[in-house]
Amino acid sequence: MTPSALAACLFLQIAVVLAFCHALGVLGRKIGQPPVMAEMLAGVILGPSLVGLFWPQFTAGLFPKESMSVLYAIAQIGIAAYMFVVGMEFRVDIVSSRLRSAVSVATAGMVCPFVLGGALGWYFHTHTQLFPAHVTLFNGAVFLGTAMAITAFPVLARIIAHKNLGGTTMGTVAMGAGAMGDAAAWSLLAVVLAGMDGRVSHAFFNIGAGVAYVAAVWLVLRPLMARWARGVESRGRLTEGEAALCVALMALGSWLTDAIGLHAVFGAFVIGVAMPRGVVTDSLIAHIQPLTSTLLLPLFFAYSGLNTQMGLLDSRYLWGMALAVMAAATLGKGAACWAAARLSGLSNRDSLGVGTLMNVRGLMELIIINIGLQRGIIS
Amino acid sequence: MTPSALAACLFLQIAVVLAFCHALGVLGRKIGQPPVMAEMLAGVILGPSLVGLFWPQFTAGLFPKESMSVLYAIAQIGIAAYMFVVGMEFRVDIVSSRLRSAVSVATAGMVCPFVLGGALGWYFHTHTQLFPAHVTLFNGAVFLGTAMAITAFPVLARIIAHKNLGGTTMGTVAMGAGAMGDAAAWSLLAVVLAGMDGRVSHAFFNIGAGVAYVAAVWLVLRPLMARWARGVESRGRLTEGEAALCVALMALGSWLTDAIGLHAVFGAFVIGVAMPRGVVTDSLIAHIQPLTSTLLLPLFFAYSGLNTQMGLLDSRYLWGMALAVMAAATLGKGAACWAAARLSGLSNRDSLGVGTLMNVRGLMELIIINIGLQRGIIS
Repeated sequence: MTPSALAACLFLQIAVVLAFCHALGVLGRKIGQPPVMAEMLAGVILGPSLVGLFWPQFTAGLFPKESMSVLYAIAQIGIAAYMFVVGMEFRVDIVSSRLRSAVSVATAGMVCPFVLGGALGWYFHTHTQLFPAHVTLFNGAVFLGTAMAITAFPVLARIIAHKNLGGTTMGTVAMGAGAMGDAAAWSLLAVVLAGMDGRVSHAFFNIGAGVAYVAAVWLVLRPLMARWARGVESRGRLTEGEAALCVALMALGSWLTDAIGLHAVFGAFVIGVAMPRGVVTDSLIAHIQPLTSTLLLPLFFAYSGLNTQMGLLDSRYLWGMALAVMAAATLGKGAACWAAARLSGLSNRDSLGVGTLMNVRGLMELIIINIGLQRGIIS
Repeated sequence: MTPSALAACLFLQIAVVLAFCHALGVLGRKIGQPPVMAEMLAGVILGPSLVGLFWPQFTAGLFPKESMSVLYAIAQIGIAAYMFVVGMEFRVDIVSSRLRSAVSVATAGMVCPFVLGGALGWYFHTHTQLFPAHVTLFNGAVFLGTAMAITAFPVLARIIAHKNLGGTTMGTVAMGAGAMGDAAAWSLLAVVLAGMDGRVSHAFFNIGAGVAYVAAVWLVLRPLMARWARGVESRGRLTEGEAALCVALMALGSWLTDAIGLHAVFGAFVIGVAMPRGVVTDSLIAHIQPLTSTLLLPLFFAYSGLNTQMGLLDSRYLWGMALAVMAAATLGKGAACWAAARLSGLSNRDSLGVGTLMNVRGLMELIIINIGLQRGIIS
């Protein structure tokens, strides 16, 4: 395809995906679902799982193979920009106020599904062909454990904001636990990815470079930006050039973490957390968030959904596997978080809410599965 | 390149292009240049004209060939989104207030450089190899005439806003004339492109489809949107879903005009002009403009600049050609617009200002040259 044919194709994809997301979103709102659910579903429906199954020419015509790498690149910018915004909205003070409950919920919510997932991974590795031959038992088990232990902090934050739960005990504990769980899962994922390459030196390099990246951002970049922000604060506004420079910084961070073997969104998130709070973050969020969430993020979800092939679940056996994973992930995390919240002194209603909220994982799950597919951990 | 390598490449390109634009912008501000100048220059400098000439590995490493179609697609979304915003900011009332002056300036500013450009095109076609063999004398002359007659309305609008000339006689006349000239140039370009395909039926189809597109948007879509806007006005705000739907509409318009052989930005602009003024356009502009102008638009200019090869001007002969085109374009338009403004009753100072402003053409020039290159009109 010529560049201009690719661009034309992209315009049509944007029109169809956005219109379809909107239609699904209107339906979803009637049954109380936040827009992010519609976005995730839209890709799955338009992709090979449903529309592509009954009308393959439509899916092949609208999403030709050559266009997928363009869509992927734009989706990556979208998710990096979104995680940058989430990083800027990340509030350490909220976590501190209910620290004990949040830590208990985060720990229980990570450990229990991780153990269940690890056990399932062990079973699948020894009894099925889920993992390619070159993936070791240990790596397979840890990957499935991590995938199941994850909580989608961005989606969690979006749902809590959408449902106005921000100030409640339930919302605060879930938010804190989600943030900690997120950080833990990313570290765990780094270990898995490093371990995948087989050589311990490689693993040490990846983890070391990741730690060095966070340290450099926190100890060098953050103070520099804080000094620069004082000028912005006294001026009261961020210029367009400064906003562009911050976006450039986000892109640089994404590229760096990608280059050292971590995922690009991690780099964007860390830069976001390090941004000086106040005029800078307020302006940047107002600047980046709207177009990111209306245009770029739906494309990310659509891309992920397009790569989901529910049709591959073509036997009772595979459906059994999928249901086992789902049950272990959902019940394991829900029950563990509910119990941890109860034990740390929350009411039964709040604990049930926390258990449910912590089960949000769509976004991270898709990211981790995409990583797994690309690195050849799963097939 | 794998999709993830392409995405990583794009992150680095964004970081470098934005940081470089910012640095040039800071320098430019010192000599009174608007940021859009820096963006245009950045691509030229980073591309084969300068950095690539002395340090080809850098340009080839940062902008590998495989990544250019991704960059092109994103640049197209950026320029479409920008023209959508320009369409929404298009104010018919401003044109009406100084209609006679604006019409005179627009006409003189189109006709004089068009005739000069046509004459140069005729000379180049008969005496040089500027045009490939399959381009007829007529098409070559009309193409060069159109390219030289164009005024970059978006850039003009941006500069007028940047310099706070919005309310002045000079600014009003230039804005009105620029808008009319823009519309005329687009129509002219449609004729050239249609004529290029040789068959008159094709030309009629393109022009007819373009007229039908504008008519459908104006007579069917606009009243529908106006009715919908009444609900938005009484509510006082645009929901995120509605904003996404408007972006989808813009993408659909871009795809349609591209499919009927016009340029995608034309479709986006027309949808923008038809958008109901008030809460809808205010919200949409606030929604789309920031990230478009800080992230997407610089990528468009960079892409255009990257495709500029000043190094190709490698003989006194070619430099002579380039200087002749530049002199004819600049003096032709400047003198014609100045004279028309004077004759329609403006002061000498205002007329000089109008003549200078109407010479803004960076953006449109690049678009028209890109079209020319892609359609094989020039080589």
